[in-house]
Amino acid sequence: MTKLMEYAEATPEVRAVFDDIMRTRGVADVNNFWKALAAHPPTLARTWESLKAVMAPGALDPAVKEMLYLAVSITNGCSYCIASHGAAARKAGMTEEMWGELMAVVGMANETNRLAFALQVPVDPQFRTP
Amino acid sequence: MTKLMEYAEATPEVRAVFDDIMRTRGVADVNNFWKALAAHPPTLARTWESLKAVMAPGALDPAVKEMLYLAVSITNGCSYCIASHGAAARKAGMTEEMWGELMAVVGMANETNRLAFALQVPVDPQFRTP
Amino acid sequence: MTKLMEYAEATPEVRAVFDDIMRTRGVADVNNFWKALAAHPPTLARTWESLKAVMAPGALDPAVKEMLYLAVSITNGCSYCIASHGAAARKAGMTEEMWGELMAVVGMANETNRLAFALQVPVDPQFRTP
Amino acid sequence: MTKLMEYAEATPEVRAVFDDIMRTRGVADVNNFWKALAAHPPTLARTWESLKAVMAPGALDPAVKEMLYLAVSITNGCSYCIASHGAAARKAGMTEEMWGELMAVVGMANETNRLAFALQVPVDPQFRTP
Amino acid sequence: MTKLMEYAEATPEVRAVFDDIMRTRGVADVNNFWKALAAHPPTLARTWESLKAVMAPGALDPAVKEMLYLAVSITNGCSYCIASHGAAARKAGMTEEMWGELMAVVGMANETNRLAFALQVPVDPQFRTP
Amino acid sequence: MTKLMEYAEATPEVRAVFDDIMRTRGVADVNNFWKALAAHPPTLARTWESLKAVMAPGALDPAVKEMLYLAVSITNGCSYCIASHGAAARKAGMTEEMWGELMAVVGMANETNRLAFALQVPVDPQFRTP
Repeated sequence: MTKLMEYAEATPEVRAVFDDIMRTRGVADVNNFWKALAAHPPTLARTWESLKAVMAPGALDPAVKEMLYLAVSITNGCSYCIASHGAAARKAGMTEEMWGELMAVVGMANETNRLAFALQVPVDPQFRTP
Repeated sequence: MTKLMEYAEATPEVRAVFDDIMRTRGVADVNNFWKALAAHPPTLARTWESLKAVMAPGALDPAVKEMLYLAVSITNGCSYCIASHGAAARKAGMTEEMWGELMAVVGMANETNRLAFALQVPVDPQFRTP
Repeated sequence: MTKLMEYAEATPEVRAVFDDIMRTRGVADVNNFWKALAAHPPTLARTWESLKAVMAPGALDPAVKEMLYLAVSITNGCSYCIASHGAAARKAGMTEEMWGELMAVVGMANETNRLAFALQVPVDPQFRTP
Repeated sequence: MTKLMEYAEATPEVRAVFDDIMRTRGVADVNNFWKALAAHPPTLARTWESLKAVMAPGALDPAVKEMLYLAVSITNGCSYCIASHGAAARKAGMTEEMWGELMAVVGMANETNRLAFALQVPVDPQFRTP
Repeated sequence: MTKLMEYAEATPEVRAVFDDIMRTRGVADVNNFWKALAAHPPTLARTWESLKAVMAPGALDPAVKEMLYLAVSITNGCSYCIASHGAAARKAGMTEEMWGELMAVVGMANETNRLAFALQVPVDPQFRTP
Repeated sequence: MTKLMEYAEATPEVRAVFDDIMRTRGVADVNNFWKALAAHPPTLARTWESLKAVMAPGALDPAVKEMLYLAVSITNGCSYCIASHGAAARKAGMTEEMWGELMAVVGMANETNRLAFALQVPVDPQFRTP
């Protein structure tokens, strides 16, 4: 729907972000999300800076972070995000068995979230943080 | 809102589920979710059987499964589920640093899911599974 | 949070809507939703007219309509709506057994919706309407 | 996106589930959802067992259950689920007039859910279950 | 998926709504949403009457109303609605710069909504309306 | 639920963010959202930097930005966000009449989003951006 901005036609401001994405990820081109987001350069730059910081290895390893991303994207039904973060999770080490278990957990959580809503369950005292 | 069924007043059918929850988790009482769900014994039994199977250790370890559960529950805004699975994730090894990173990933995913929706980004060929 | 407009302090425009709600439902007072919505009289009037038309008996009977309302409200996690339409559904004939089954269906649907998202399942030809 | 597992290439474990689906529903082949879910046999088996139990005739008849499924699937925007459960609901007796009314109720519920959120309406005492 | 009802084949009841849409908007044909909704004439008529009233100029100008519509549609991931209200917003004066800022705000709001859920932040006294 | 970090007990890193929030907004204390988010200082700092950039006056004025924030928060049912951005929107100039119209638009958009999902309406050629 949206125009996909290719590197050749991009402004220096947009190219700088594309360059950093390619360098950080070791890829020869950026994926469509970034080409589309280039329609608004400040949002492109800010989103990339945030994503780079948030997805860097930390207390959680990159495969777990990508799987959390997938859990959210599946819950929201974002096809693009499921495809792109599915690929990223597999690259980071998610096996097909892990993917199967992830789907099962995400499905169950969406189910029991609604059972808890339906029943308006009061929080147990032991679950309240002190 | 809903009546919370205590063990003392439960039918043998409900007690059997409560017993299995307590045994499996090594706890002295079941939490409110199960006491509320006892209003419909077949759903209580089926939900517990599914949850027990899905959350058992497998290719993903229990802490990761609990964090995926949290990612979904935060996305859906389920207060009870955030409290109960937050406690379970901490018990399974989630540190405060991991919790901080989890929140950050869940927040970013909810943001970029909407940017992808807004821009109706087409899926890149390399993300399509063969 | 919002001010609840009582009949005694309402304008004639708001009172006319309140009167029609009380007459249509055979109740002595309107519930809080309408008292809160009176903050914007055109939205109060339009919402009531729409709801009255949509929830009237038709090809679907009122109990089924109230249960559909509940299924949506549970999916969205709207506590007020679960409480008010739960009461309305019971008044229209929903038994506790029906409520238990409703919860089970809503839970499953929320689960399998996510499995279908996760797997990006293509629609079967026989499900496409001609 | 995902591979669709055909009966001819399936393992005995997967074939047993496919056989039970075909027998229970009286169909000559399973629909794509199950072929995709066969990627993770334990989730395939568990999901089918749950769905079979939940959707069986009970206090709610099958047409009502399918319509509740549709209400959830529309609220979540799950295209596959709307197509497959739309077909199932029609097979179970949902007429076009009932479908029209279902859409109207689901639309209104999604609207008033947000009005209730916006106004943060407090629950009326009479809607609290004793 | 659904049949699109063309003017030539429509009943007088449906034509009257189509006529009013074309007259109000100054267009030569109605868009697909209305052609699809014509499957249920009472919902077609009611939805158009509501939409006409809600989207008319008022305290908020039409461009702002269309941008609010877009914010909701992006949050829900409704592709059709993003396309149709995106076109309407541009026609009403939304520039590409405004569209870029809108996306950024919608993205941030979806992110911080989840941070607020995750942390279960209590409402500050000064934010409670008196 | 979460601990609220007060300025007096905060680290210099957290105080620097709190100071910038208070200076930018001209307030004597930060609101609870920031006190809770201080549990993870990198997320606190990054979220504030993003929010400050996104909500600054631009092609859209601050009142419109706050109203877009409200539209998203109402759609997601985030009570805290509705309260805090409701206050911010009023401070930026949103009148009660504008608030009433905003609610009406958000309600309608949530309704018609579901009608478009239910009917799986194909996008009109004129709505596709070239």
